[in-house]
Amino acid sequence: MDAAEFRKRGKEMVDYVADYLEKIEKRQVFPDVEPGYLRPLVADSAPQDPESFEDVFKDIEKIIMPGVTHWHSPYFFAYFPSASSFPALLADMLCGGIGCVGFSWAASPACTELETVMLDWLGKMVNLPKEFLAEKDGQGGGVIQGSASEATLIALLAARTKIIRQVQSEKPELTEAEIMGTLVAYASDQFCATLGTTSCCSFDKLLELGPICNKENIWMHIDAAYAGSAFICPEFRHLLNGVEFADSFNFNPHKWLLVNFDCSAMWVKKRSDLIGAFKLEPLYLQHHHQESGLVTDYRHWQIPLGRRFRSLKLWFVLRMYGVRGLQEHIRKHIRLSHQFEHLVLQDERFEICAEVVLGLVCFRLKGSNELNEALLKSINDAKKIHLVPCHLREKFVLRFAVCSRTVESTHIKFAWQHISQLATDLLKTWEHNHHQQ
Amino acid sequence: MDAAEFRKRGKEMVDYVADYLEKIEKRQVFPDVEPGYLRPLVADSAPQDPESFEDVFKDIEKIIMPGVTHWHSPYFFAYFPSASSFPALLADMLCGGIGCVGFSWAASPACTELETVMLDWLGKMVNLPKEFLAEKDGQGGGVIQGSASEATLIALLAARTKIIRQVQSEKPELTEAEIMGTLVAYASDQFCATLGTTSCCSFDKLLELGPICNKENIWMHIDAAYAGSAFICPEFRHLLNGVEFADSFNFNPHKWLLVNFDCSAMWVKKRSDLIGAFKLEPLYLQHHHQESGLVTDYRHWQIPLGRRFRSLKLWFVLRMYGVRGLQEHIRKHIRLSHQFEHLVLQDERFEICAEVVLGLVCFRLKGSNELNEALLKSINDAKKIHLVPCHLREKFVLRFAVCSRTVESTHIKFAWQHISQLATDLLKTWEHNHHQQ
Repeated sequence: MDAAEFRKRGKEMVDYVADYLEKIEKRQVFPDVEPGYLRPLVADSAPQDPESFEDVFKDIEKIIMPGVTHWHSPYFFAYFPSASSFPALLADMLCGGIGCVGFSWAASPACTELETVMLDWLGKMVNLPKEFLAEKDGQGGGVIQGSASEATLIALLAARTKIIRQVQSEKPELTEAEIMGTLVAYASDQFCATLGTTSCCSFDKLLELGPICNKENIWMHIDAAYAGSAFICPEFRHLLNGVEFADSFNFNPHKWLLVNFDCSAMWVKKRSDLIGAFKLEPLYLQHHHQESGLVTDYRHWQIPLGRRFRSLKLWFVLRMYGVRGLQEHIRKHIRLSHQFEHLVLQDERFEICAEVVLGLVCFRLKGSNELNEALLKSINDAKKIHLVPCHLREKFVLRFAVCSRTVESTHIKFAWQHISQLATDLLKTWEHNHHQQ
Repeated sequence: MDAAEFRKRGKEMVDYVADYLEKIEKRQVFPDVEPGYLRPLVADSAPQDPESFEDVFKDIEKIIMPGVTHWHSPYFFAYFPSASSFPALLADMLCGGIGCVGFSWAASPACTELETVMLDWLGKMVNLPKEFLAEKDGQGGGVIQGSASEATLIALLAARTKIIRQVQSEKPELTEAEIMGTLVAYASDQFCATLGTTSCCSFDKLLELGPICNKENIWMHIDAAYAGSAFICPEFRHLLNGVEFADSFNFNPHKWLLVNFDCSAMWVKKRSDLIGAFKLEPLYLQHHHQESGLVTDYRHWQIPLGRRFRSLKLWFVLRMYGVRGLQEHIRKHIRLSHQFEHLVLQDERFEICAEVVLGLVCFRLKGSNELNEALLKSINDAKKIHLVPCHLREKFVLRFAVCSRTVESTHIKFAWQHISQLATDLLKTWEHNHHQQ
């Protein structure tokens, strides 16, 4: 395929993606396929000779779409949102076209520098303490990781390296393994200090944890993967109070800030803590600016060596939505979750299981776990909407997460009427069976 | 931005990317900017109100492009290739449009199943032993990681978990930390068993290492990040002989197989070794098929939880190039590296420093390291081509890596004439200065 054909096919693909997203509501949110459905539909091995774009393109609807769970359907209420917006899609096209690998400043200065500045923009949007910003000559700064798990791992490894070096300098007779055996990582059953847990969007008390960590010389990492985006709204920023005690902080614009996956933003107060743990300096990656102290080489901030030009997505989204546009998006989702909460509360058969703070509603039928498992099964088997469950203190609970960029009040009403009707049907059978027993 | 505007802007972006790649030769391969160039060109913080697409779009040439190192220029001979092709760009657009997160089978069955099948296709293309394939009921299989570093880390962690469990079952009185202190990871100064090292593309002797690892119950991981793509050509497949002794194997289609970053292919003989190390089962990620043993949940195979639909890139590229088209691409690069090698060998001032096996030529002026450092500096300062160096046994060596998809014989000739002329200029000054001293 040459550039001329790419122009033609690229425009067809733009239309396909626009059609897909515009009409996604008409697709069944959860697929009908059974495990192993795809293998019989494709060849046993790669073709020897090229196939045409048309051949591949027609297989998208034939082979791929029947097996897709439509995360951007307004009837998708599972997990947490995965961000998607048109500006981010455009930026990703540009990122792919440039196709640079930004492991050092020299490998593409724009890739490194835009990332540093965008993480400053984003840090200011959630009003992070100044120590977390890079600015012109700060000691902190931000980096885009692939996921919150990687950010947590990086924080853990940096903390470990830092404390091992400290202990070694005090007790040089100890080996690294001996020191490691004495280290402790404190965590709840959701791991590190978390703002907006996945199960029920609960918040750890940073203002209590933080001072203890600081006093005891414990590295404090805060994971706000989902909730972090909400802190761009002044009315939710108080949830982040206490971040000033942390060494590192992370949230995922790829969850709730309309930046397509992957874009997990991580900040540290002392970039030297990361670089100290991961520094990698083979000759072929060195360049004459690195000794100047003026440049950032992001390969020292992460596990992989390679990295894409992901800050373009942030740049496009932040500018083309503006802070106000993004705040509106967050507020709409939270408004819709409260709408759903109110619908649940009006029905005496149901209970709300955790405070609704942001865009997640945890609810269940008053009754046994088995009853609620049956309700979830009937919801997901009907495939008109899609939810996943969680456990809260032994209780089986249904999670209703407001996810899609295009979800509106009518979808929430539809979802509730549907759930309510399925509950009515279920309770009839359930009571009947129960009566018979 | 709504779908209608996305249709318009998306098509403009397709044309921009096509223009960029079609005319990339005319851009200076390495940028002129100095550290810190970008910050003064952008606002201090994100705008409150939305900006138009036009405003953002015009800043691409104004702010971004002046700081881009053009990895796909046919004058780029640095590092190793980073793959780029039009079919992969189209697939990435589709991947972004679908925007699913494939951490479990249920989160998007197509995303998981296409990946498993594509890794089988790719495994067959390099003629991996059958134990590495998933097929319908194999115990092995492949997964797409973000980078070779992640694949190595995963292999290391899986190996560690496996041996710790084994030792614990034999000596239950030992703690995990005590066992860890006794574990040894064997590596050369390029780390694990490597096919095609970054410095000079050398090859470890798998047929000697493999039987020792098997006999001593050592997990053997093979990293062929760059070289692996060449094994699709029968005449280079012998370089992979010995892979039958390995537990895990990895190479990067995103380097040399025309699949845009990121797509690092990793295979294991026993998928249970990975799953055992990384299994993560909160209720919200469970689904009723997982107990059947029929499905793959890729979150157990990797560090991150989230994952994009990256196998679409493999599917598009393998089908639209065909095995023969990809073999032609590999063979062209290797032909061009030998062309450069021959040009170097015809000039008595230069020497070749390592056997040219694939697309990398390591060469230097006969003389001091300082002389060669000065030559590299004059090459990279002129910015007509771009190279990086390496150290081979204390010697400072220039690496000439054939990188761009569109590089042709004329570019190789130009590069050599340019290097040769700069060497002539340098040697005049150098001898003059040396004579004066």
